[in-house]
Amino acid sequence: MLSAIFGFSLNPTFTRYLQIQLLPSSFDAQGSANAAQRLTCFVIDDRVTVDAGSLGIALSEAQRRTIRDVVVTHPHMDHIASLPIFVDDLFGELRQPVRIHATSEVIELLKADVFNDTVYPKFDELRNEHGPVMEYVPFQMGQEFQVAHLKLTAIAVNHIVPTVGLLVSDGKATVAFSSDTAETEELWHVVNHARHLNALFIEASFPDAMEALAKASKHLTPSMLRTELNKLNHNGMDILAVHLKPAYREKVIQELNELGIEKLRVMEPGRIYEW
Amino acid sequence: MLSAIFGFSLNPTFTRYLQIQLLPSSFDAQGSANAAQRLTCFVIDDRVTVDAGSLGIALSEAQRRTIRDVVVTHPHMDHIASLPIFVDDLFGELRQPVRIHATSEVIELLKADVFNDTVYPKFDELRNEHGPVMEYVPFQMGQEFQVAHLKLTAIAVNHIVPTVGLLVSDGKATVAFSSDTAETEELWHVVNHARHLNALFIEASFPDAMEALAKASKHLTPSMLRTELNKLNHNGMDILAVHLKPAYREKVIQELNELGIEKLRVMEPGRIYEW
Ligand SMILES: [Zn+2]
Ligand SMILES: [Zn+2]
Ligand SMILES: [Zn+2]
Ligand SMILES: [Zn+2]
Repeated sequence: MLSAIFGFSLNPTFTRYLQIQLLPSSFDAQGSANAAQRLTCFVIDDRVTVDAGSLGIALSEAQRRTIRDVVVTHPHMDHIASLPIFVDDLFGELRQPVRIHATSEVIELLKADVFNDTVYPKFDELRNEHGPVMEYVPFQMGQEFQVAHLKLTAIAVNHIVPTVGLLVSDGKATVAFSSDTAETEELWHVVNHARHLNALFIEASFPDAMEALAKASKHLTPSMLRTELNKLNHNGMDILAVHLKPAYREKVIQELNELGIEKLRVMEPGRIYEW
Repeated sequence: MLSAIFGFSLNPTFTRYLQIQLLPSSFDAQGSANAAQRLTCFVIDDRVTVDAGSLGIALSEAQRRTIRDVVVTHPHMDHIASLPIFVDDLFGELRQPVRIHATSEVIELLKADVFNDTVYPKFDELRNEHGPVMEYVPFQMGQEFQVAHLKLTAIAVNHIVPTVGLLVSDGKATVAFSSDTAETEELWHVVNHARHLNALFIEASFPDAMEALAKASKHLTPSMLRTELNKLNHNGMDILAVHLKPAYREKVIQELNELGIEKLRVMEPGRIYEW
């Protein structure tokens, strides 16, 4: 794993590695990004994002020009909060629509609750002088689909609303995202069928003492994460823990460290990771 | 108008001035707050907020402990995006519910589209060990109501969804918020009946050349803002322009400056203003 400095990013044309950045989503009292993760948005190769929590508020101007594909794993606010702002910012200048990739079920929820003319305009029905500004692109569970230069496979995971985990490959490196989930099976079967796995982004929301709440809200604790990793046949991949609830962050980090898994780290917002 | 430095704030107990801060809502490529406003949340005296766009992601830890009242002017995403995150962060420790003050109409929209178990849990139905974690508190248009130490009056303004402007007083200083609106009348009648006015927070979303879009989406341009100010009988108050669309920010600032109104400024996110 190589990692670039905060905010540094190669032009996508010259990228030799698969680059993944968790956007910052929380300000400290001095107005700087802090390590707490309150929204979820992973930027891949400055072209595609997985989820859109901080998409509209934390991109560089260069990223804002090159990202036109957004994969939404599920409609929880922390994963979509600034998606409407992202499209709004670009409304006048878009020469191709922003494409929202999701299951049909999640697309219907976004239409009903977000782009519904109450919470924000129905951008899928609006055009600028160049054409439509946003379109929904449904994908099928378990069937590989292409987004920009990436191949993705989506698998239902175990969360309180319809949610997918993702296997993502650029043809050389392959990574997996758990999204929000409690214990799950099918995602790991699909990941185990991949030839290799460079990195796994897995949630660790609550400390072990809150396992009851984790199970009720369908999230993982460090102990539950440990059990999930036992279902994986791959070895040696980087494991990036994400989605730590800010109120319990220190405790979760301590418990993750106590697992003693060598390549397990808490992902740092803003930092670019490469494989 | 006195103004404190970024992030500095007196303990509310010792506050002698009405303090208002527009929370930052946008990161630059180095992970620092920039001047662009992509979400709306005004913090008053570290106890009450008007709107909740960046409420969940930009408070100091001290503010997170003292703010329990949120006034929602309308349900557009840029005004509510991180409200669910704010409540979620505090879920385990709340000893009184977070109170969401809004018209019944807006409360119904928040129930239907936000706290609906799809976008986020129905927090108004959930409790921690101390009691309920969130409650809706409806207010009546045109009737003064109390929120913490403040007296407020809400008036319907002219936006594409049900929206209120607000007159707010701590008994000494009085300020008004236009919220999102195109040309409007009733709000200014009510403001004109106030004994004095220390500050007006008024939107200026689009440049003059985009007046057609401003009117279609029910926002103001600098020229339209000028016409609104002519409806006001008060003189000498500070006028803080807010809600500038980031894509047109420089042009709107130039046109606001060209209005030649002495006490008109663009409000700076993070800065504390006092009256
Ligand atoms: Zn979720
Ligand atoms: Zn989540
Ligand atoms: Zn609005
Ligand atoms: Zn707005």
